[in-house]
Amino acid sequence: MTKRATVIWAHPRTDSLTATITSDVIEELTAQGFEVDEIDLHREGFDPLVREADEPDFITVDKQYTPEVMELAARTKAADALVFVFPVWWYSVPAIMKGYIDRVWNFGLFYGEGRRSGIAAARWIGLAGESAEAFRKREYDDMIARNLNVGIAGLCGVGDSRVVLLHDTLGDGIDDLDAHYAALRAQARSVAEELAGTLAVAEVGA
Amino acid sequence: MTKRATVIWAHPRTDSLTATITSDVIEELTAQGFEVDEIDLHREGFDPLVREADEPDFITVDKQYTPEVMELAARTKAADALVFVFPVWWYSVPAIMKGYIDRVWNFGLFYGEGRRSGIAAARWIGLAGESAEAFRKREYDDMIARNLNVGIAGLCGVGDSRVVLLHDTLGDGIDDLDAHYAALRAQARSVAEELAGTLAVAEVGA
Repeated sequence: MTKRATVIWAHPRTDSLTATITSDVIEELTAQGFEVDEIDLHREGFDPLVREADEPDFITVDKQYTPEVMELAARTKAADALVFVFPVWWYSVPAIMKGYIDRVWNFGLFYGEGRRSGIAAARWIGLAGESAEAFRKREYDDMIARNLNVGIAGLCGVGDSRVVLLHDTLGDGIDDLDAHYAALRAQARSVAEELAGTLAVAEVGA
Repeated sequence: MTKRATVIWAHPRTDSLTATITSDVIEELTAQGFEVDEIDLHREGFDPLVREADEPDFITVDKQYTPEVMELAARTKAADALVFVFPVWWYSVPAIMKGYIDRVWNFGLFYGEGRRSGIAAARWIGLAGESAEAFRKREYDDMIARNLNVGIAGLCGVGDSRVVLLHDTLGDGIDDLDAHYAALRAQARSVAEELAGTLAVAEVGA
């Protein structure tokens, strides 16, 4: 059976490195046989504000949220695997992506009273201006992984969640920029490839 | 000289516990002699999306951002102390508050080429539905503190930053709810009181 992947990405510009990496990931997922749904948060005009209509009601597990939330939840939950692509701002996801989680990964839809997302795997590809050494020094890599893998994916039953940080995206201190960006793009493609292999193995094992 | 505090808070509803706690904090700061500016992100209609005009330009430290950003940056930087009040969603701040950081705490305004915020202290009062034990078990308390104190405040030269989590805000497993909520409100007031003492000591020591 064809595997489905939903790619959720956030960047104000379509000429950004984040956009390029997203295209690479979608191309590679498609090459690996995935049917891909792309959620381009900025161009879809996603509103990241939780208003009263989308506040969780912890008594009503079947609460109907706004149509935007219900539709995005359905598109997300239809996937076997998710790939998030985003610039790392302040050592976490941009506000628009946080708002997608705040609103869409809601009580009764992704968690609550034993409910789970039903999604097998998630990969969070974060583009960071700083180096891997700078992140390790302050344990930002562990911090981000704990938040995204444990606090979000884990809580919603996505057992296989992994953060992949692409570093030095501003090119500071890099001599051969062409080779550097090619390596970052290859790293992102390898995430898509690895994901296909992981899901195939999971299917054989099931 | 009169000390200035800016209180930045986020909740969709003005009848929320977050709103009540914010009022308590403002009242206590005023009683302690602070001149208080309140940034109510939802009612001010704050837009949390970084669009191209507010992307940092790491070459131009004097970049003029949009008027909304320049005004909020000025109101924030006019303060000696900041108090953030917010519900903890997914073990971090809500999207609207993340967007306030993403857009307003921008390159050249709060950090960059040796620039800093000029703010002495920050307190982050987060309202969490889960218990303190649940947070400690998965080290979410440390994770939140690292992100807000080190990754945000520290990077912008706010040397004295502290996260205070108010737990069990949904009242799960609490017998005497009136006493419980009174204790949470008192805890928030004590943060304002402590802040006044801290700044007074800092001034004497300067």
